[in-house]
Amino acid sequence: MREYTARAHTNIALLKYWGKADTDFIIPTTTSISLTLDEFYTDTSVKFDDDLVQDQVFLNDAPLAGKSYDKIVRFLDIVRQEAQLSTHALVKSTNHVPTAAGLASSASAFAALAGSASKAAGLNLTPSELSRLARRGSGSASRSIFGGFVEWQRGDSDESSYAKVLQADVDWDIQLLTVIINDQPKKIDSRGGMQHTQATSPFYAQWVENTNAAVSDMEAAIAQHDFEKLGSLAESNALQMHATNTTANPPFNYLTDQSWTVIQLAATLRQKGIEVYATMDAGPNVKLISKQQDTQAITEALAASLPNVQTVAATPGPGIQIVKGAKL
Amino acid sequence: MREYTARAHTNIALLKYWGKADTDFIIPTTTSISLTLDEFYTDTSVKFDDDLVQDQVFLNDAPLAGKSYDKIVRFLDIVRQEAQLSTHALVKSTNHVPTAAGLASSASAFAALAGSASKAAGLNLTPSELSRLARRGSGSASRSIFGGFVEWQRGDSDESSYAKVLQADVDWDIQLLTVIINDQPKKIDSRGGMQHTQATSPFYAQWVENTNAAVSDMEAAIAQHDFEKLGSLAESNALQMHATNTTANPPFNYLTDQSWTVIQLAATLRQKGIEVYATMDAGPNVKLISKQQDTQAITEALAASLPNVQTVAATPGPGIQIVKGAKL
Repeated sequence: MREYTARAHTNIALLKYWGKADTDFIIPTTTSISLTLDEFYTDTSVKFDDDLVQDQVFLNDAPLAGKSYDKIVRFLDIVRQEAQLSTHALVKSTNHVPTAAGLASSASAFAALAGSASKAAGLNLTPSELSRLARRGSGSASRSIFGGFVEWQRGDSDESSYAKVLQADVDWDIQLLTVIINDQPKKIDSRGGMQHTQATSPFYAQWVENTNAAVSDMEAAIAQHDFEKLGSLAESNALQMHATNTTANPPFNYLTDQSWTVIQLAATLRQKGIEVYATMDAGPNVKLISKQQDTQAITEALAASLPNVQTVAATPGPGIQIVKGAKL
Repeated sequence: MREYTARAHTNIALLKYWGKADTDFIIPTTTSISLTLDEFYTDTSVKFDDDLVQDQVFLNDAPLAGKSYDKIVRFLDIVRQEAQLSTHALVKSTNHVPTAAGLASSASAFAALAGSASKAAGLNLTPSELSRLARRGSGSASRSIFGGFVEWQRGDSDESSYAKVLQADVDWDIQLLTVIINDQPKKIDSRGGMQHTQATSPFYAQWVENTNAAVSDMEAAIAQHDFEKLGSLAESNALQMHATNTTANPPFNYLTDQSWTVIQLAATLRQKGIEVYATMDAGPNVKLISKQQDTQAITEALAASLPNVQTVAATPGPGIQIVKGAKL
């Protein structure tokens, strides 16, 4: 069997995925819309090899074990089943997503694994099929198959739930400036968090309704390069998602005082004419949807409120790349 | 004219008042349910005096001026109109509500003022009429006319929106243990906060619906002395109210990291069999709905998580007292 290598970039959702209609197949309750990021990606090589007695997985040159390993084996089992293969695989993955930035690496990780493993197993999947496969590993990975603005249509079955490109070539000024929050609250993983919220928050159904209702507005904002509309829809959606967590039973909260300082700074900057909006995922870091031209003004304002805070900028990135061999 | 003095106790809502259907008459969007507290009260004496050329108001022996003074004059105007009186008043008020505890003093303040001013003006109001009058000063004051568990029926007009007793004699173990949070975020008054939220939060309508739907359950919990049901309904309602604020546009937040430490400590204590639930109003302090028998266990657990944090306990209190003269 041949070895294939894939590079997939991470993505940040502007309309979020937060809850599953089907947990086995990872069919979401909401259609989500994201921006793929240029700076953060995962490279993964896969080779199926008859000599292996079990799957071997290396992440950043270290052998992977435990739950993370098990999750990858389960994913490889899906690939093997589709390819009618029983061979074990050698997986080598390198993450170029700084852990501190809290930029979900599971999206790029499972997209890259889906791309390299499917090709190595001899499957020739269409982009939609590849998105469906990546979805089985991690919901948000379905979006990392594509570049630019991407929409994961929730669908209602394994066949109908996959991502598509909304705008591959993002030729206007939009970036995500991640503000790294130092005060880390207790870690609750997104899979457990969304499940608990979906089961117990009295606002959950309303959030699903509001998110799905915002899809066509967000599509229009992207098509029209309407920064203000895109930003305000994204910020509202993120805040609503976090409010489903703070109303769960028992409640939990990813955001800290520092997160709120940044969220409120964004509102203050908007009053001063600087277009900047906040979005937050399953952690305290705040990603500022902003323009590259405003980076300096934003970071200066941040430094005045939160000295020592670090920022990481990311611009729109490409879709998955898959090549034959062990390297790109 | 004769002088009258009234003592009214503050109250904490278990189902919250957060938004107005009519801003002039303070008709709320939700029926609210509260517990009147024994330890915190306001004493207010009122005398209408033909010799006065304007209303004079003293709070804790200091003359009151500015917006707070104007608000009291506007309230006295309502009393004068009902009593067909044009005389100015001398108002002397003493607050026995520690400011740091963040236990709303406007509830006890306007209830005591309504009681003393109406009697001094020669009005003989029924308790319902007095509750309606107090409501015109501050919505939550309508509830401080009564002791124990009180329900402010939202109604749909000046005539139909007033409080009534649910359980005057609270002969079971329930207290509110206020945890005083030191990290104070930017102050947003409840009147401005609720107005902004009502106008902009995409969860506001759902919160109103959920609150009104919880009324009969809360009534049943109180009637049955069902501590767990009462506490869990109250905590969910408070969290939902705060989630309407964090989803307003722009968002705001009364709760801090320390508030969340206390909220999550309550959940941890419940897992250990200690019945304790959190409720929060327009500030960072957390009021723990708890039993006197558990005070020590709770304060010890608090001290372990938040050293130096102070607590103030309050038990169920009585309704308004009105006496002739300058003193109770």
